[in-house]
Amino acid sequence: MSDEPGQEAASVGLRRVSVQRRDGEDSEPDWVAVEEPLEIRIGGESFAVTMRTPGHDRELAAGFLFTEGVLRRRVDLRLLEKRHDLADYDPDNVVDVELSSEAASRTEALDAARRDLTATAACGLCGKARIEAVYQRLPVIPRATKAVALELLRGLPDRMREGQRLFERTGGLHAAALFRLDGSLVALREDVGRHNAVDKLVGRSLLNDELPWHDRILVTSGRAGFEVVQKALMAAVPTVVAVGAASTLSVEAAGRGGLDLYTFVRSDRSVRHVRPGIALASK
Amino acid sequence: MSDEPGQEAASVGLRRVSVQRRDGEDSEPDWVAVEEPLEIRIGGESFAVTMRTPGHDRELAAGFLFTEGVLRRRVDLRLLEKRHDLADYDPDNVVDVELSSEAASRTEALDAARRDLTATAACGLCGKARIEAVYQRLPVIPRATKAVALELLRGLPDRMREGQRLFERTGGLHAAALFRLDGSLVALREDVGRHNAVDKLVGRSLLNDELPWHDRILVTSGRAGFEVVQKALMAAVPTVVAVGAASTLSVEAAGRGGLDLYTFVRSDRSVRHVRPGIALASK
Repeated sequence: MSDEPGQEAASVGLRRVSVQRRDGEDSEPDWVAVEEPLEIRIGGESFAVTMRTPGHDRELAAGFLFTEGVLRRRVDLRLLEKRHDLADYDPDNVVDVELSSEAASRTEALDAARRDLTATAACGLCGKARIEAVYQRLPVIPRATKAVALELLRGLPDRMREGQRLFERTGGLHAAALFRLDGSLVALREDVGRHNAVDKLVGRSLLNDELPWHDRILVTSGRAGFEVVQKALMAAVPTVVAVGAASTLSVEAAGRGGLDLYTFVRSDRSVRHVRPGIALASK
Repeated sequence: MSDEPGQEAASVGLRRVSVQRRDGEDSEPDWVAVEEPLEIRIGGESFAVTMRTPGHDRELAAGFLFTEGVLRRRVDLRLLEKRHDLADYDPDNVVDVELSSEAASRTEALDAARRDLTATAACGLCGKARIEAVYQRLPVIPRATKAVALELLRGLPDRMREGQRLFERTGGLHAAALFRLDGSLVALREDVGRHNAVDKLVGRSLLNDELPWHDRILVTSGRAGFEVVQKALMAAVPTVVAVGAASTLSVEAAGRGGLDLYTFVRSDRSVRHVRPGIALASK
């Protein structure tokens, strides 16, 4: 696992395709982001499938299982590896997970995650009951570490963009980046799915025993929808910076979870700051 | 159901929240796009849940069931309505569907869709087997209607943007729009989910008996990932215009399905044209 931003992914997340550039030039190959299904298996059973850009797949699997509440710490993982012995599957697209006996005995969490995922098949995270359940298991986010200067926050999306190697080639990938409070970059991940990029970062930190993210800032390239904010809350990061807009559910989640959410953080807009504790106006 | 672009949605897809604009101004309310779960029930049983922006929910349910292969035509629907008699659910967020006896007897399609959705819980549409199954049921797209001038295509995203009432207020919604071959707008739908905006358009056309889309152009505000291209193929539209990038899977799907896919259709980039029949270069 490399900490160099995008290094692993740069070698596997791109493919050339034949396209015609329609500005007078002839047909030529262009770089396109790879999108392929990753299956996450627990104890040999299929647990979930996500469409992702290959690269950092073990981190993605670990992060996904953490933000779903199945894993709580690194020792919960007894095994986390790519499968190369399955005749009916592309070995690049399956990550096999074995839980420690302690984690496996918390079958309640596993069953709940499985039930939630099955019940909400059409999207990553849905349903009123599911949303309430998410709030009940969120960690407490400390207030003391939250003072971050606006000028520092404003500069982070550009610093993230500088590290987006795949985006630079394809113009078509989401990114998530983790920064220290002084604005220095910890790690960056790219993916066709915004939520996958966040899960890859969470998984990296889980595997390095660097969770929770009390002294970190999470930056996301797209909208800050509910799913992204929920993952941020699970990682207990006090500050989220989004290039795009919030939604009603993400504002509510940030308010209830105790998260400072900054949206429209880009040069041509005035930044919106959603502060912890605020409530949605009624319909 | 209104054909006025965005009219129904404009009344329900927005909510004010308290935010601080961080450019010297005081705290003030800002408009945020609504994101809420919609449950689609078939015969009283939960079939799928999707996080969506309220508005055109019946169209969304009908379109989703069509692009999943459960519905083939309007007469397959015996009932399609909001529920207001469920004590444990928000009546605004459940659409109840009853299939005609003919459609219900095609339980194979229903079971396959249910199995696919359950097996691929972490995303909208995943898994190699699922991808192959999608190709097997695609309609044939006619070649004859495909000649559309590039200059006309180039102008469509701006024309879509002019109709995006919710985006204008929130800066944070995806849109999909259906155009005639002369560049006139048929309908426009907005949603926090790119795929939902497309399903709302498909559902509208299904309910108006206006499928397939042989003489139409589909425009999408974001990336053209596999899911969007798969839905376009189900509606048999020969031309898709995307403001964002393609992915390997969407290029493959367009090539196999016989779709002209134009990406990066915006003023500051050279348009990429992925033509039917082209194959991906090997890894």
